[in-house]
Amino acid sequence: MNIDGTPYRTILPAADGASVEVIDQTRLPFAFEMKRLATLDEAAVAIRTMIVRGAPLIGVTAAYGLALGLRRDASDAGIDHAVETLAATRPTAINLRWALDRVAAKLREVEVSERAAYAFAEAGRIAEEDVESCHAIGRHGAAILADLHEAKGRRLNVLTHCNAGWLATVDWGTALAPIYVAHEAGIPVHVYVDETRPRNQGAALTAFELNAHGVPHTVISDNAGGHLMQHGEIDVCIVGSDRTTASGDVCNKIGTYLKALAASDNRIPFYAALPFSTIDWTLTDGVAQIPIEERDGREVSHLTGRLADGGFATIEVVSPGSPVANPAFDVTPARLVTGIITERGVASADAEGLLALYPERRSAV
Amino acid sequence: MNIDGTPYRTILPAADGASVEVIDQTRLPFAFEMKRLATLDEAAVAIRTMIVRGAPLIGVTAAYGLALGLRRDASDAGIDHAVETLAATRPTAINLRWALDRVAAKLREVEVSERAAYAFAEAGRIAEEDVESCHAIGRHGAAILADLHEAKGRRLNVLTHCNAGWLATVDWGTALAPIYVAHEAGIPVHVYVDETRPRNQGAALTAFELNAHGVPHTVISDNAGGHLMQHGEIDVCIVGSDRTTASGDVCNKIGTYLKALAASDNRIPFYAALPFSTIDWTLTDGVAQIPIEERDGREVSHLTGRLADGGFATIEVVSPGSPVANPAFDVTPARLVTGIITERGVASADAEGLLALYPERRSAV
Repeated sequence: MNIDGTPYRTILPAADGASVEVIDQTRLPFAFEMKRLATLDEAAVAIRTMIVRGAPLIGVTAAYGLALGLRRDASDAGIDHAVETLAATRPTAINLRWALDRVAAKLREVEVSERAAYAFAEAGRIAEEDVESCHAIGRHGAAILADLHEAKGRRLNVLTHCNAGWLATVDWGTALAPIYVAHEAGIPVHVYVDETRPRNQGAALTAFELNAHGVPHTVISDNAGGHLMQHGEIDVCIVGSDRTTASGDVCNKIGTYLKALAASDNRIPFYAALPFSTIDWTLTDGVAQIPIEERDGREVSHLTGRLADGGFATIEVVSPGSPVANPAFDVTPARLVTGIITERGVASADAEGLLALYPERRSAV
Repeated sequence: MNIDGTPYRTILPAADGASVEVIDQTRLPFAFEMKRLATLDEAAVAIRTMIVRGAPLIGVTAAYGLALGLRRDASDAGIDHAVETLAATRPTAINLRWALDRVAAKLREVEVSERAAYAFAEAGRIAEEDVESCHAIGRHGAAILADLHEAKGRRLNVLTHCNAGWLATVDWGTALAPIYVAHEAGIPVHVYVDETRPRNQGAALTAFELNAHGVPHTVISDNAGGHLMQHGEIDVCIVGSDRTTASGDVCNKIGTYLKALAASDNRIPFYAALPFSTIDWTLTDGVAQIPIEERDGREVSHLTGRLADGGFATIEVVSPGSPVANPAFDVTPARLVTGIITERGVASADAEGLLALYPERRSAV
């Protein structure tokens, strides 16, 4: 999507296959900077420290990271080391594992001298497919927004949580793709953006990208969404997903479940928008089966932001001496999900709905 | 309650009736400082800028503020001016109006020269009654915790939102009073403290007072409570209330409604603890009837906290140029409230339940 009129992508490979450039998302929204990743370790650090984040972009970055690792050691042991290093960076993200498996699958059949180039090209194909996939999610979701707009006859208010925008993917985004497609089609859309504590990806990233592309929006605290729904201020919720069960349970940024409860209580449609790579066909009970990453409590107790003089500072906001817990994701049970928007269409949030879109999985399940 | 072993109150009148001292809650949790209020305007500013906050403490401060105003002008016009000035500081808080009406009720029958002293003494009676009331809330709520502890046979985990602790009252608190009484009685209680964006009263004030008094607790982001409830980590929720309808709807800090939804979804009891002065007997539909204060968006976009060097800084955390909305309260419908804990006992959250505790209101309704 655009930043002040110029189209960008979140990850751009160098033509010689020796490095990739990524948008440093830890610097947003106050500075827009690209960062070069030239080694396996730099890619792993970029994923672990959230220089890149968002399930699809993590997958693409991991794929490129594997290719970068093979430039140094393309032996079978080198493949194993690179896959293990990258897989350990973010345990919850299913795309990470999926992308690594896809690149690694045929690697051992490739000549050792060709492995790095093969992996780099395969990572590029994953990136291109992600762009196509996100654009398709956008078209399917925008049809929902077009119907809602026709029914309401006024500006649509969409609530989203965290950042499942183009910054979380290569382009378009997942949850925000329908909004971009609808906006481009002239449907008046306004987005309520949950700030999304503790890492504030909504306030920092979703607000940044909507603002940069020119989509009307308003940032709210995570606590405000229920109140807005009670008062008719939200017409539809669209969120992303880091992992989705075969039964339609949606694992997404912590706090998503609370918004789904409020949407259900106020009869507001609640959609998750996600690519097929996010679906974990081996799982049937998200709350019981999906391990939830527990992150450093310092993410809750400390915040970094911009000072009035333009400098940056990290401040402490929790009473000193108080322990902090920081689960990073939660699971929204399928019963609270109106539909799942994928690159193939919109499914009901259950096994039958998902299998109708992915019939090739019928035998696998 | 105690700060490092020394008992405190949030508001302390000077013996000569010329001023009151309050804990400056904008300085917590990093600095503990008292602030002297000697005039009507100082009292109004203290309420408006949240040097004092919490419905009961706002009421007591307003009562003292009226007395301070009468020291300068005790005429009928002076009474009107002081009441209007103080009533305008925080439109949502019902206690504010209640305390002002109580002090003002008989003021016009008092000699002009005696009015300031009368008002100061009446404010002191309101403060003492608040302490008694909160302690009674604590005893009634602690009985619930004692029963839960007996049923569970292990440490109890209580979730609370915002600060309805002793810092929000004169002493004991409302939502935290049952926790203090239970803790003193030797019942093992651990409190999950919602940080409570945007003003972080949970992270700053609830964590501070629990830590200072020695009650085990863990701070979490507002987004985390639903996940913890799904995984059996919360046994009961107790929140305060800024305004409660005769039908049992609870208006409290923004985000309370989301926790009540999650408690209901996970069959976890959800209580509101409040003094009778919080009940607005004229209201029957909280969502439709209670006006919700819309506060400055800067509370969401900027945070103030402590730097590593011990200094303080205010940082910007929302993407520049993005609009912000900041509703300060929401309403939890009575259907989501297990019970209302008042100084007279525990009522079901409906008109009959509340009228059974306050039978003198039967004729009034």
